[in-house]
Amino acid sequence: MTDEQDVCIKFGTRLSLLRKEKKGWSQERLALESGLARSYISGVERGVRNISLKNICKLAATLEVNPSELLIFSQ
Amino acid sequence: MTDEQDVCIKFGTRLSLLRKEKKGWSQERLALESGLARSYISGVERGVRNISLKNICKLAATLEVNPSELLIFSQ
Repeated sequence: MTDEQDVCIKFGTRLSLLRKEKKGWSQERLALESGLARSYISGVERGVRNISLKNICKLAATLEVNPSELLIFSQ
Repeated sequence: MTDEQDVCIKFGTRLSLLRKEKKGWSQERLALESGLARSYISGVERGVRNISLKNICKLAATLEVNPSELLIFSQ
């Protein structure tokens, strides 16, 4: 949690999990539903993008989860 | 929650509350402790900055709360 780089990877892992578990969607489907670019979603899930608050909330709304749920990282 | 602008205002309100309740700190003290600029903290709390995941986690670590706690918005 303290390692900054790590935070993006943890978020990406969490997003990927919720996308599959909650919706059973592909990255492309999440992109279409959220209005964000597929390449951006891919980068976020790989932990190479430092996502902003607005986009966190946009993805949470699309997945129908509370934004805080996206920031619950395992370990 | 769906309104994008509103999300930054809700986050700012939440940050301000946790800063005072958890630590009793001024914005300046939070800036010093986190290594972020005081003007930046002020902008985030006023809801005019779209904070990134890394800075959300930096502030959460500084306030000794879980990052998800910063995204629990009232209403």
